[in-house]
Amino acid sequence: MNTKITLAFILLFGLKSFAQDLNNVQFPHMQKTSVRKEIRMPNILGYQTLKCDFHMHTIFSDGVVWPTVRVDEAWEEGLDAIAITDHIENQPSKKYVTGDHNASYEMAIDRANEKNILLIRAGEVTRKMPPGHLNALFLDDVNPIDTKEPIDALLAAKKQGAFILWNHPGWKAQQPDTCLWMPMHQELFEKGLINGIEVFNEQEFYPIVLDWCLNKKLAVISNSDIHDVTSHFFDIENGHHRPVTLVFAKDRSLKSIQEAMFENRTLAWFDNKLAGKKEFLEAIFKASVTAKPTGKTDGKNREIYEITNISAIPFIVENMKGQVTTVPAESTITMTLDLMDYQELTIRNCYTGSNSILHVNMP
Amino acid sequence: MNTKITLAFILLFGLKSFAQDLNNVQFPHMQKTSVRKEIRMPNILGYQTLKCDFHMHTIFSDGVVWPTVRVDEAWEEGLDAIAITDHIENQPSKKYVTGDHNASYEMAIDRANEKNILLIRAGEVTRKMPPGHLNALFLDDVNPIDTKEPIDALLAAKKQGAFILWNHPGWKAQQPDTCLWMPMHQELFEKGLINGIEVFNEQEFYPIVLDWCLNKKLAVISNSDIHDVTSHFFDIENGHHRPVTLVFAKDRSLKSIQEAMFENRTLAWFDNKLAGKKEFLEAIFKASVTAKPTGKTDGKNREIYEITNISAIPFIVENMKGQVTTVPAESTITMTLDLMDYQELTIRNCYTGSNSILHVNMP
Amino acid sequence: MNTKITLAFILLFGLKSFAQDLNNVQFPHMQKTSVRKEIRMPNILGYQTLKCDFHMHTIFSDGVVWPTVRVDEAWEEGLDAIAITDHIENQPSKKYVTGDHNASYEMAIDRANEKNILLIRAGEVTRKMPPGHLNALFLDDVNPIDTKEPIDALLAAKKQGAFILWNHPGWKAQQPDTCLWMPMHQELFEKGLINGIEVFNEQEFYPIVLDWCLNKKLAVISNSDIHDVTSHFFDIENGHHRPVTLVFAKDRSLKSIQEAMFENRTLAWFDNKLAGKKEFLEAIFKASVTAKPTGKTDGKNREIYEITNISAIPFIVENMKGQVTTVPAESTITMTLDLMDYQELTIRNCYTGSNSILHVNMP
Amino acid sequence: MNTKITLAFILLFGLKSFAQDLNNVQFPHMQKTSVRKEIRMPNILGYQTLKCDFHMHTIFSDGVVWPTVRVDEAWEEGLDAIAITDHIENQPSKKYVTGDHNASYEMAIDRANEKNILLIRAGEVTRKMPPGHLNALFLDDVNPIDTKEPIDALLAAKKQGAFILWNHPGWKAQQPDTCLWMPMHQELFEKGLINGIEVFNEQEFYPIVLDWCLNKKLAVISNSDIHDVTSHFFDIENGHHRPVTLVFAKDRSLKSIQEAMFENRTLAWFDNKLAGKKEFLEAIFKASVTAKPTGKTDGKNREIYEITNISAIPFIVENMKGQVTTVPAESTITMTLDLMDYQELTIRNCYTGSNSILHVNMP
Repeated sequence: MNTKITLAFILLFGLKSFAQDLNNVQFPHMQKTSVRKEIRMPNILGYQTLKCDFHMHTIFSDGVVWPTVRVDEAWEEGLDAIAITDHIENQPSKKYVTGDHNASYEMAIDRANEKNILLIRAGEVTRKMPPGHLNALFLDDVNPIDTKEPIDALLAAKKQGAFILWNHPGWKAQQPDTCLWMPMHQELFEKGLINGIEVFNEQEFYPIVLDWCLNKKLAVISNSDIHDVTSHFFDIENGHHRPVTLVFAKDRSLKSIQEAMFENRTLAWFDNKLAGKKEFLEAIFKASVTAKPTGKTDGKNREIYEITNISAIPFIVENMKGQVTTVPAESTITMTLDLMDYQELTIRNCYTGSNSILHVNMP
Repeated sequence: MNTKITLAFILLFGLKSFAQDLNNVQFPHMQKTSVRKEIRMPNILGYQTLKCDFHMHTIFSDGVVWPTVRVDEAWEEGLDAIAITDHIENQPSKKYVTGDHNASYEMAIDRANEKNILLIRAGEVTRKMPPGHLNALFLDDVNPIDTKEPIDALLAAKKQGAFILWNHPGWKAQQPDTCLWMPMHQELFEKGLINGIEVFNEQEFYPIVLDWCLNKKLAVISNSDIHDVTSHFFDIENGHHRPVTLVFAKDRSLKSIQEAMFENRTLAWFDNKLAGKKEFLEAIFKASVTAKPTGKTDGKNREIYEITNISAIPFIVENMKGQVTTVPAESTITMTLDLMDYQELTIRNCYTGSNSILHVNMP
Repeated sequence: MNTKITLAFILLFGLKSFAQDLNNVQFPHMQKTSVRKEIRMPNILGYQTLKCDFHMHTIFSDGVVWPTVRVDEAWEEGLDAIAITDHIENQPSKKYVTGDHNASYEMAIDRANEKNILLIRAGEVTRKMPPGHLNALFLDDVNPIDTKEPIDALLAAKKQGAFILWNHPGWKAQQPDTCLWMPMHQELFEKGLINGIEVFNEQEFYPIVLDWCLNKKLAVISNSDIHDVTSHFFDIENGHHRPVTLVFAKDRSLKSIQEAMFENRTLAWFDNKLAGKKEFLEAIFKASVTAKPTGKTDGKNREIYEITNISAIPFIVENMKGQVTTVPAESTITMTLDLMDYQELTIRNCYTGSNSILHVNMP
Repeated sequence: MNTKITLAFILLFGLKSFAQDLNNVQFPHMQKTSVRKEIRMPNILGYQTLKCDFHMHTIFSDGVVWPTVRVDEAWEEGLDAIAITDHIENQPSKKYVTGDHNASYEMAIDRANEKNILLIRAGEVTRKMPPGHLNALFLDDVNPIDTKEPIDALLAAKKQGAFILWNHPGWKAQQPDTCLWMPMHQELFEKGLINGIEVFNEQEFYPIVLDWCLNKKLAVISNSDIHDVTSHFFDIENGHHRPVTLVFAKDRSLKSIQEAMFENRTLAWFDNKLAGKKEFLEAIFKASVTAKPTGKTDGKNREIYEITNISAIPFIVENMKGQVTTVPAESTITMTLDLMDYQELTIRNCYTGSNSILHVNMP
């Protein structure tokens, strides 16, 4: 192979060595490179914005993948932390899959370390309503929460300092017509055995739960509860995302996530919408969307602006005249606008309660 | 909700009933619909062209998914038949995953029936070279091929009428420098214990094996050998496909597939290339690509044609003047051409041997 | 370059000759191949289903592209016929762009012939309301319709046998609050000077116009009215399509399209919805969607079916129990169903009037 | 419409007001939002990295779009500056398109201001070889370069302070077999009438020109020379990009771009490759790609790193052992590596000459 050809080769294909025999030719371009797609989200109020999913299953309960797959998915989808929460009581594959309640964590932790994903040891207490399903997060040992009475499971978790999360309270299989806060939930809440609730689970939103969380000072949570391969269930290649909890933590560590959750520093993110405390919503919006005058005006002497959104969330913005603009995620658009009309904004896809959306004043 | 609004609703969103309370709002649009993407491939020579993958793993050996996932993937990717071929001898998850060698088939067969995927009961004899790895396909019971000596495993398979497939003969872990047909392979071949060979495995091509198959009248096979989720390993959403064996069968049944394979009625399809017997390659090309005169001519009085390719394979066509055109998959292009230059064609991405590509005469 | 390397080259890259000097290296892979994406739509009731767009602009009025671009777009987007309808009265580029009213047709006809696109000679009479904007289609000469009075323009068109189309009757610039059939429209209608109306234009739907067309026996039309590059305005790469009129014609010719339009054999297709006569909607649905039993049943003994939709339109199907299923375009899904629930269907995205949707009885 | 429904509406669709009549229903989701996709590229050596295309056509010569389209495309594709360079001598549409040589600039400048795109007034001197085609950039008036003799055109441009660019010197229509620096080019060069050369044009690379530029201290340029709609010619929706010149300028202004070009502070970017001066290539690479230890090790005690590439260019990196890794654009990958093997890197897709690629030492 003469120099010219070799060079042309390099120029065209970026390949120097080339299979020169007929025994084995590699087609590396057939293999998809595993890449992490960062979720661009601004840090706010002095905290780091971490992207977390606290609810998912593997073949160690009724999921269809080996625990390492959950780590790989989380890494590719830009998450910082996950909890694998296999059911304690529901293990349909028991005939073939053995191991105690720590097995899924143990199978995944090395991969999590390799990929720099924070892995939370956890389990899902799976009972009929009430109390329904609850995740015990940040455990040292999952086995003690396998008890006869549900309350004993939660007490055993509490003893380990667990954050306890009530899952999908409005799930129709357990609350077909309503989404009720039952006496048993009041009891658990008073004993500190409910610390957060899913306002969003898989593809369901429980608007009333958003009010519960804000009133009772519980963390607002959004989780995938994924059993399938995530990209089989959610349409990730077309820009959709799994439900995610944004946690505002002092740093990127399990300890800081746990602390932030106990202090309700979270937002629920699902289907390009955000729900939670006004203060966090406003901070995220203002840190994401900015307007820069181009110094140019249109024919009617109105100023032209470049509106930039650095976050992964498109914002649907309504001005004081009721005009609505979507500022797409990670993009810039140009708009001709009169600043007077944009001093108060309504952000249509940010929910501050079951019946209210975010209003912000702009400087 | 008055009629006008309901109607506008229907018009805009195609939804009649709508969640009218705050307990549970469904976001069904977040869930990806599972659809089958048919692999468009013409039937030829009186046979049905079936798309098959005879080599894949689950958590019952060293794969990462539950057996039903293999069926779901096959259905979505347009396959007709698959064999789950968990290793007999290599089961790294044994500590947690139990069950005999039929377990993966048994876990998947109901889903296969639901999805109308033909599921072949099979196992992979996994030995050091020689003989290397061999799949026993079309078994009634996988357990008898778990023997001490590899030849006994193959004899046990043969007793059940199995088709035996030599996997990845040029795999560098077993044949680092070459791809040799060893004396033991000659012995197995003479005893009827090798009936086909992978010329393509995962992302590797063994050109020399194409010659072996054609000379020794063995079936040419292309398999994924997938351990991961297929869409995590292959870039399916961007138009890539897993390696597939095209089987030319009398009908869509396990029996006819088995018969076709013993009669070498197969082609290997990988990375938008085809390899195998000239007669099948030519038939596929001619049934796929047609030229239709538009009745119009260009400025130089040359006829304008619409060239249509109905198959999922783009064909790279060289004419008698050395001009090369790619006719994209499932598309039509227009070309100004002189039929005299297109009486003999060379099809660049159809291999008839390790050192030869397809030439066809056009009528 | 020795044989082995050449071969490996062919194998890997499908390239035989290779740039061997440093003067000029081609990167043909950078260029997008222009391919036609056929719109798969069944033929019905003995007619061919042709896909047409009767309203679009070029730089010869207020569009931004040269006329040949309209042909290229039409070919790539799978259309059979188009009309370039530059404004007679609105020519903002007149300072720089000259030529008479036939210029855009004349600039495009050679390309249309090359690409096998049927090109309709046409112009848009562009007046204030009433009568608003009307396209004169199937002209021999566009110049005579440049008259002082609008009615004279339409009479001049009629003299040439033109099909006259009322464009965007509910366009807010001309009918800000309502969409009225005015006395002048009644007059034109009675004189045979309105033969069809746009129920859909660009991104606007006029439901009331659907009733007008059905009651007055006028052709139901859906057009793009595109001024921009189509793929800049419509999100074609993500599966959206421009508004299209389906014409049910005896063959693929201008004459048969014209005849079909005068006989109201059309449907409006926009945003994955269809609107028009029940008989055509029902025929399209039934020719598109079929159910095939797999011969398998689920755990509850209900039959499993493969539901196939061969058309480019997803259908949103509601059964007698109110259960809704979307059958995606050009796909197959599997469903467990009880035929008794599917004897009468409501097709949510097929509109038979401003206030009614398609109901079909299944055999 | 009661409150609950309104709210559910807002929750689901982010829409408050809703078309309540049948006259006109808007389908705004059918329209593609025009968004700018920023080209992420680090600033280096104290300069701003501006993305520029200095060669393109409109209907005012032989292009197919109105000048404003060039601005819209540039904005969407993330460019900072463009020159519209309609041919002075080649105007096939002259019959219909009139106007002097400034017309395309004048038609585009308002849109450029609105979109914050820097628009360079320019024209293409279009002669047979020698001297071939040359762009005169940064003119005040294009008309004076319409002269009989090519040299007079260039002198007239020079008088206005123009930067003169030799286009596609290896274009086969003008230099079918070679790419020669002819005596006339030497003459022009000595008179200061060649200030830069295209090493890349449309889909052609002239490796030898890279040496000319580096030896003669001329700016290395990469341009699209687009005549068609850019997204029709280049496969932009699938991640390809038009050829672009990176200019390292003191600020984002026409003046600083002109200054930078006269000082040869440019790189050519095409097909995910970079060509030009080693110092700029090295700076771009080092500012783009960083490795961060995860603090974890693999089974063999080798450190695991996160490798992040913030730029829009994937880099193909070869280490001292000849191992090749592609670090994808705007992504993070994890790698187990031994720093000792990565002290000297070869960057396969960065060309420092017709026969050499970039080598960098890592700290």
